[in-house]
Amino acid sequence: MSIIHEQAKVMKSLSPMIANLSLEVRNQILLAIHDALINNKERIFEANELDLKKAREDKLDDPVIKRLKFSEEKLKDVTGGLKGLIKLPDPLYVTSLERELSEGLKLVRKTCAIGVIGVIFESRPDALIQIAGLCIKSGNAAILKGGSEAYNSNKVIFEIMNEAAVKAGLPEGGIFLASTRSEIADLLECNEYVDLLIPRGSNAFVQYIMNNTQIPVMGHADGICHVYADKDADIDLAVKVIVDSKTQYVSVCNATETLLVHKDISKELLPILNEELLKKNVTVVGSREVMDIISCEEASEEDWKTEYLDYKISIKLVGSVDEAIEHINKYGSHHTDCIVTKCDETADHFMRYVDSAGVYRNCSTRFADGFRYGFGAEVGVSTGKLHARGPVGLEGLVTYKYMLTGDGHIVADFAEGKKTFIHDR
Amino acid sequence: MSIIHEQAKVMKSLSPMIANLSLEVRNQILLAIHDALINNKERIFEANELDLKKAREDKLDDPVIKRLKFSEEKLKDVTGGLKGLIKLPDPLYVTSLERELSEGLKLVRKTCAIGVIGVIFESRPDALIQIAGLCIKSGNAAILKGGSEAYNSNKVIFEIMNEAAVKAGLPEGGIFLASTRSEIADLLECNEYVDLLIPRGSNAFVQYIMNNTQIPVMGHADGICHVYADKDADIDLAVKVIVDSKTQYVSVCNATETLLVHKDISKELLPILNEELLKKNVTVVGSREVMDIISCEEASEEDWKTEYLDYKISIKLVGSVDEAIEHINKYGSHHTDCIVTKCDETADHFMRYVDSAGVYRNCSTRFADGFRYGFGAEVGVSTGKLHARGPVGLEGLVTYKYMLTGDGHIVADFAEGKKTFIHDR
Repeated sequence: MSIIHEQAKVMKSLSPMIANLSLEVRNQILLAIHDALINNKERIFEANELDLKKAREDKLDDPVIKRLKFSEEKLKDVTGGLKGLIKLPDPLYVTSLERELSEGLKLVRKTCAIGVIGVIFESRPDALIQIAGLCIKSGNAAILKGGSEAYNSNKVIFEIMNEAAVKAGLPEGGIFLASTRSEIADLLECNEYVDLLIPRGSNAFVQYIMNNTQIPVMGHADGICHVYADKDADIDLAVKVIVDSKTQYVSVCNATETLLVHKDISKELLPILNEELLKKNVTVVGSREVMDIISCEEASEEDWKTEYLDYKISIKLVGSVDEAIEHINKYGSHHTDCIVTKCDETADHFMRYVDSAGVYRNCSTRFADGFRYGFGAEVGVSTGKLHARGPVGLEGLVTYKYMLTGDGHIVADFAEGKKTFIHDR
Repeated sequence: MSIIHEQAKVMKSLSPMIANLSLEVRNQILLAIHDALINNKERIFEANELDLKKAREDKLDDPVIKRLKFSEEKLKDVTGGLKGLIKLPDPLYVTSLERELSEGLKLVRKTCAIGVIGVIFESRPDALIQIAGLCIKSGNAAILKGGSEAYNSNKVIFEIMNEAAVKAGLPEGGIFLASTRSEIADLLECNEYVDLLIPRGSNAFVQYIMNNTQIPVMGHADGICHVYADKDADIDLAVKVIVDSKTQYVSVCNATETLLVHKDISKELLPILNEELLKKNVTVVGSREVMDIISCEEASEEDWKTEYLDYKISIKLVGSVDEAIEHINKYGSHHTDCIVTKCDETADHFMRYVDSAGVYRNCSTRFADGFRYGFGAEVGVSTGKLHARGPVGLEGLVTYKYMLTGDGHIVADFAEGKKTFIHDR
């Protein structure tokens, strides 16, 4: 049995206890982690320096190094996040259905923890804290595997968190840090003990995980987000929303990759927009019709399927909102898509027919985020349709159970017509 | 491209239309199907006779033939079910979250259809009607594949349903019947167009589907249900509940397979219970301690893991409610488990710590069913923890989307501190 396997087995047996820690205890654990991280920040910064040194030696990309760096500011953000998490209402034992099936036979459906969750995340050490916090608040045991670039940072952060959490009431072994890459393969084998895997990373990585485990996977894939500027768009508002959606932070999944413009406003909108995009050094590729209006390279079929994650945008003209919807449903990744329009009817149509987790009107696609939605934190953004969709916070980390209480009620009485269900009367 | 592939592609393009049919139209479609089935019942009975004849020639088991038979009574049940479905509230565009993120930036989360669903079900022709009805009411397009034993019945039922549905407003191609076994393999390849697969059948079959497709699968596995008779159980009530849970209908997933009895009441309960079970021809296997009290064969380790689906029960003594919980969480299939006790505290502990879709007190495990829960119908009972758990009705066939409406809101304003989120203040 691998270490992960042993650990997962212990976690599974602990999970009913963790799932039933009172809200008070769960919040105390979060507060203890919060305090311990602040009190031991120098240890974390030291360990983080080791990772940064190695990253520079290995000549990793600047964005990676930026994400890897655990600064005073990131500590402030992430501990602030923990405080926010403490303030959020309890996601457990929330009643979502209550019904008397027959005299004295009462059905109640309540939320409960999922059990044991495995999260595989990228090289941000602050992600470790966020994810552990979400799992603890939702009563789940968690096996956490961070990026190898953050090995030293994660190790020290985990030690600090775990010590504080156990002192505050988390059963020992309720959270576990996997540190080697080979442990991912071990984790995938733990279907007997692990209830859910959440891999964060590229589409290919998520797909790899899905194809190599029998554990249910909540995938958080990439984002090809669109803005559609309708014929009834306010031009200034459209420019503002498009520029923000594209450039506010280019390397994230909720940044816009493709702009669709209604033919009727294209000659007015595109020149103004292009000027603003040029100021931000955005490269434009466009369909032939776009090239007739502004100077840009021609977009290929491949462009409509590409998540640039860069200062680059593809632009296409469409003849109607339905054509825009069709393009988005065909080429998009069902993440977040926005219409800019003054017309309520067109907006309603777009928001109903676009098959995405987020359908927006007159605002930036960059809002698609658990923090901005007020969820306190997120484990990621789901482009799948099952269980949780869009930014996934505490609600995505719980399931529910049906609790039925009777007084000797048996089905034979109903089958024989001696009793009837209230909902059938 | 296979027929299924072509069909799924058409369905995918139709799915936004189907998802946005008004409640009125969806209910009209259900009513039209209801009427058409009744008006054409003789055609169905004739086709069903062909299937029954073949089944008898092939010497299929009696229970299979019983399920296959589409009688006047089954027609009444299933058309009654359609009427019930019509009366149920609209599962679509139900608001589950409403929040102003910042002045003028309004977030709403509403339920919506999943899109294209593939359901592979067993040889009951009435299942075809139920499942199609659920998909239509929830605004989903559906590819349906029934058991080959019901080939003729399904073909005629589908023709009748489809003709009536299209006349009443369902886009042509919104439901499709796959009729050959090879089409299952084709269906598994349609990940580009099919959003969800619901295989009904054995655990092995569900697992096979999961391992051979990239489409998300909602699995409906088998059930090893337990009754635990606590030391504070009312003996008569316990006997009544156990006998019903075991014998009311043995070949279904919510029938009880294992009984756990607290040592303190075992000598009183077991002899009385055994007498009742004998009357119903139930074979008992038990642990050594059980054998000391009543005459029975010894249960092996394998018995605790076995779903008999027959007049057979395994019995074990336990020393505490926690021992019962441990056994259930270890050997059960997380379907439905019941405690019989007069003690509120023990019941609450059991219902919290048992990790199952249904946790019952003082009533038969046989109540675990979408009809009995008042869901109108069910596509099955889920023992998974993601998306839908327990009996799955309309709620399990919808997802949700986040609708965000602003007035030119951009993330840059928040990043630069010019604006703040209401939930952060």
